Amino acid sequence: MGGGIIGLVTAWRAAQRGLVTAVVDPAPGGGAARVAAGMLAAVTELHYGEQTLLALNLASARRYPAFAAELADAAGQDLGYRRAGTLAVAVDADDRAHLRELHAFQRQHGLESEWLSGRECRRLEPMLAPGVRGGLRVDGDHQIDPRRLAAALVTACERAGVVFHRVRAERLTVVRGRAVGVVTAGSTALEAPRVVLAAGSLSGTLAGVPAEVLPPVRPVKGQVLRLAMPSDRAPLLHRTVRAVVRGNPLYLVPRESGELVVGATSEELGWDTAVTAGGVYELLRDAHELVPGITELPLTETLAGLRPGSPDNAPLLGPTALPGLLLATGHFRNGVLLTPVTGDVMAHALTTGELPEVARPFTPGRFAPGPAPARTEQPV
Amino acid sequence: MGGGIIGLVTAWRAAQRGLVTAVVDPAPGGGAARVAAGMLAAVTELHYGEQTLLALNLASARRYPAFAAELADAAGQDLGYRRAGTLAVAVDADDRAHLRELHAFQRQHGLESEWLSGRECRRLEPMLAPGVRGGLRVDGDHQIDPRRLAAALVTACERAGVVFHRVRAERLTVVRGRAVGVVTAGSTALEAPRVVLAAGSLSGTLAGVPAEVLPPVRPVKGQVLRLAMPSDRAPLLHRTVRAVVRGNPLYLVPRESGELVVGATSEELGWDTAVTAGGVYELLRDAHELVPGITELPLTETLAGLRPGSPDNAPLLGPTALPGLLLATGHFRNGVLLTPVTGDVMAHALTTGELPEVARPFTPGRFAPGPAPARTEQPV
Repeated sequence: MGGGIIGLVTAWRAAQRGLVTAVVDPAPGGGAARVAAGMLAAVTELHYGEQTLLALNLASARRYPAFAAELADAAGQDLGYRRAGTLAVAVDADDRAHLRELHAFQRQHGLESEWLSGRECRRLEPMLAPGVRGGLRVDGDHQIDPRRLAAALVTACERAGVVFHRVRAERLTVVRGRAVGVVTAGSTALEAPRVVLAAGSLSGTLAGVPAEVLPPVRPVKGQVLRLAMPSDRAPLLHRTVRAVVRGNPLYLVPRESGELVVGATSEELGWDTAVTAGGVYELLRDAHELVPGITELPLTETLAGLRPGSPDNAPLLGPTALPGLLLATGHFRNGVLLTPVTGDVMAHALTTGELPEVARPFTPGRFAPGPAPARTEQPV
Repeated sequence: MGGGIIGLVTAWRAAQRGLVTAVVDPAPGGGAARVAAGMLAAVTELHYGEQTLLALNLASARRYPAFAAELADAAGQDLGYRRAGTLAVAVDADDRAHLRELHAFQRQHGLESEWLSGRECRRLEPMLAPGVRGGLRVDGDHQIDPRRLAAALVTACERAGVVFHRVRAERLTVVRGRAVGVVTAGSTALEAPRVVLAAGSLSGTLAGVPAEVLPPVRPVKGQVLRLAMPSDRAPLLHRTVRAVVRGNPLYLVPRESGELVVGATSEELGWDTAVTAGGVYELLRDAHELVPGITELPLTETLAGLRPGSPDNAPLLGPTALPGLLLATGHFRNGVLLTPVTGDVMAHALTTGELPEVARPFTPGRFAPGPAPARTEQPV
């Protein structure tokens, strides 16, 4: 259930392993990937307290080159995969101190990240504001075009024999304590010995799922802009640039197509997906502070999407306490990055009934009511 | 030639007087009116040195109630005509001094305009920023929805028997020193004893028009935003609010439909109609400074259009030195306001060969090469 990138990669990998697979979604290839910038930022997205997630992020980042090559080949489509690297910059002294700490933390974990002075940052990216005080160069944090990724996954699924039911899933069918299929909005009953709930921010809303296994995901709204860099001039930026401006995380992701993605707000407003005057204003203000030259660029698109947030910002992967029901949701900010590892992990779980080592900290059971299972911090 | 509001009103009024009338335009009802906010701001748009234009603006404003009623009736459509008035406010001491002078200037000309303190402004419009230092209340400056105006004019024209050629006019046909028709993009030759060039900012580009009568109009780009006021709450604003923020004229026009129009940039960039990051940023920044509550509103549309600017910011109306060719262009910021008087004046010129008194200062001949004709300042 769910034809976003997570549901699709799960279906593709499952079909490749010989499982008869169907995807239920009114618009496969849609979802949050339509809005996402597509940063593959295992290193620059590192947050304190999320070291467990770091291991999964790194595992997925390592898989990306082979995954992207295989998928592009299977779908016959370009994914906009680009290894141009990322530059995380500081725009004031506080930021600089914070980035310095992040750098030390990254090195503790053996991650490749180079400290640059403000001048060195501007040598790499001459359009950066004069006020930039320093930054971290992370050549290993790449990017992909999430819309192309989603479209390629749809094609790859079709070619691998995945059946698409282009309709909304209304209710999980549970018989004698076991998930055995879904009922669609057209009242069609689909039967399946295993059901994967991969409906992104909607995953917590499906009828028929017993309360004790309903995933605790919530929508976290993100507003994103798309600007157009003129093709007749040198690109405004050569790699992803990120910063924290006035406490708001900001990124600018330049694509080879000339598109410049600017994001993202982070708002807890339920299911609201309105693009607001304030959201657009803050993104433009902060982006202008970081790269003043953006003002001349055409603003071609404004969009809002819903990240599937989870209580610990990490995904819920694998079997639940309800036999037959598996989860692949709660990827929050990291859905695009985690697509390769999610596909592999879910296919493994579907064929063997077990989660591979790398995914064990992300079992849905960690949020189950009652005594919490022991949670081991993964070494990275 | 030209099916924007100026060409349409001319055609409608001409057809009403019994003339066989045709409009040549690939998309009648389009043009700058699609972007315009629709302020009918004869008083608050008063600029020093434009007293002559003021007389025409006031003449058109006086005609608006009857014109709007007649057009709404003829087309069977609502025009969004609203007499809610306008409040021009000052956001700093310089502005306040400037508005005070404008107020004195308005009173010199016998215009109705009331000075309000900052507190009185906020009593009228509680969502105004606390920093507002005072303002001018002008209840006579109304508004209309220009898209509805344009659509109603198309319908009224059709009902009055105007023929529409939905194709671009390519060239004016001149035979023995007289305009006798146009050739369209489809190479169709249309014959007419009188041709009205009413192509907005494009009016100076038509092939075949002799250089000495080609109107000196240029495109002046304006970027405009549309926000949505929630229907379940009190409207954010009750009347049009205008100000000059950081030297940029800004207006917020609340419609009864819940739409809030925010404009406008003024850019001399040729035919460019890109919506830019900088344009949207500045409008949102300035609007936010004036009415902080806009940040929560959905941003539903961003658009740029081209005003037809003329050397003295006033329109070119009536016969040219080329027999058979008349102009109705160069309306710059006042096209919507000047629609009623333009229709009347042009129909008069088409049927009598002469301009009525009110339009004489706006003859195209004032820009003719050679000795300038005497130009009399109109008393108002």
